[in-house]
Amino acid sequence: MVTSLSCSSSRPYVAFTGPKKALLPLPHCTADIRGMQSPVIAPGRAASGRVILVGAGPGAPDLLTVRAVRALAVATVVVHDGLIDPAVLDFAPGARRVDVSKRRDRHTLPQDAINALLVAEARAGHTVIRLKGGDPFIFGRGGEEVDACVAAGVAVEVVPGVSAALGAAAGALMPLTHRDHASSVSFVAGTCQNLVEQDWAGLAGKGRTLVIYMGVTNANAIADKLIADGLAPDCPCAVLERGTLPGARVVRTLLADLGGAVVAHSVVSPALLVIGDVTRGVAAAAVTEGLICAC
Amino acid sequence: MVTSLSCSSSRPYVAFTGPKKALLPLPHCTADIRGMQSPVIAPGRAASGRVILVGAGPGAPDLLTVRAVRALAVATVVVHDGLIDPAVLDFAPGARRVDVSKRRDRHTLPQDAINALLVAEARAGHTVIRLKGGDPFIFGRGGEEVDACVAAGVAVEVVPGVSAALGAAAGALMPLTHRDHASSVSFVAGTCQNLVEQDWAGLAGKGRTLVIYMGVTNANAIADKLIADGLAPDCPCAVLERGTLPGARVVRTLLADLGGAVVAHSVVSPALLVIGDVTRGVAAAAVTEGLICAC
Repeated sequence: MVTSLSCSSSRPYVAFTGPKKALLPLPHCTADIRGMQSPVIAPGRAASGRVILVGAGPGAPDLLTVRAVRALAVATVVVHDGLIDPAVLDFAPGARRVDVSKRRDRHTLPQDAINALLVAEARAGHTVIRLKGGDPFIFGRGGEEVDACVAAGVAVEVVPGVSAALGAAAGALMPLTHRDHASSVSFVAGTCQNLVEQDWAGLAGKGRTLVIYMGVTNANAIADKLIADGLAPDCPCAVLERGTLPGARVVRTLLADLGGAVVAHSVVSPALLVIGDVTRGVAAAAVTEGLICAC
Repeated sequence: MVTSLSCSSSRPYVAFTGPKKALLPLPHCTADIRGMQSPVIAPGRAASGRVILVGAGPGAPDLLTVRAVRALAVATVVVHDGLIDPAVLDFAPGARRVDVSKRRDRHTLPQDAINALLVAEARAGHTVIRLKGGDPFIFGRGGEEVDACVAAGVAVEVVPGVSAALGAAAGALMPLTHRDHASSVSFVAGTCQNLVEQDWAGLAGKGRTLVIYMGVTNANAIADKLIADGLAPDCPCAVLERGTLPGARVVRTLLADLGGAVVAHSVVSPALLVIGDVTRGVAAAAVTEGLICAC
């Protein structure tokens, strides 16, 4: 049976299916953020350390949210990935920076170690910003990090960000949904390690847009995989390289030619693959044909 | 054959498949937005009117991007939907406001009329901000608007925003992808008009998250549709009501009970439906059970 639990009108309330428990609001927890106030991330409100996962957006520093900028301003520790613009890190001038994308041996810190680091820093009293490209909950492994914080009893919140696909699509004037072309959009990750295990069947096709993150180095295998799943070799697709960043490029091609186009144009990460008819829209075509500039 | 077209190093360049044409940069067009400069939307740079589609984010005013705030500051006309917080509109103090969500007869302005309005205002020399909830290219019909501008020869650009799903998921500590639960996430729109025509087969299921925008008034029919498509009646799902806004609520239930839960809790728009195992994560469960507060 579903019951509901309410707290004071100034706070959000939640409905739940389990036994009724007292609501334990965090010291910094309030939903009243109208008028551009951000008490959620106001300095000095937390009685002890906490972790805030912050989406750094698609690349351009001014595509951070206002809340993200404010969160960075109160950080005492920033734990960040690679590919974060130095201008973004400069929003946290007083914070110690920890780059978990590489260590002295050039290996990425394992996820378990990142989780443990976040918990330890918060327990030491820090306001820890976990800064992640795009949105923390779209291929950011943010779910594992919030799970770890909750399991450890560490206060955690998430500041959403503009995911890479949204940023790159905006720059390319390429809508991800469109009344004439696509009524759904799906996001998957095309990293090399486990591509064969990934089940993408049906995510692309007529009326559907598929965006593949982190797939550019694997574009040829991805095209083969999609064709094996039943997609037409002449399905239109595009590569959006360095979306929102200086030097952004748009390459439009056909699925069978995707791998070749990536090689021919020396496309490198960061880049997204977009599969579907939205890549053939009026505005997207104008950008790609150079009639207008893709900013 | 795919050829490439480059412009000066300070501008993005594009590769294209059509005949080579001269790149015609817009007056406001530059990719150099490092260091939080936003020349793209700098005032006084446009020789004539233009249209900027701006994503207003998921609801909370401080989840606008910095670029969106700056775009609003230079607007002379703001064309906006309903559900935009007055605090957001206040970022454009000098702009004339046009609410296209309702007219005197309480009907929404047809899309063709909105397109025509944007073009006409830009041709009259205005800097027109088309302000849309969430992201302009996710169920915002932004694609049709940029197409109309490009077809009319009106300068247009897009400022991406945090889509509603990302904002609501962040507040509910409910990752949309998760290594243990979902390797893909798909977005569809559940508006009543054409639900039976919508093909969602395969978008939800094991290892996949499906987010349904604008579906709460249709929750019962949506659950039936998904079950008819082969989804298990006991598939976990959640309703995220008023994500990022005061009074946000999370209701977790099973697919067969989705319509009933919406009625029992009097859930109303704006709300999203999330279908899949991510609704059963550790942190999301803690939020819903009231152990921590969903900010």
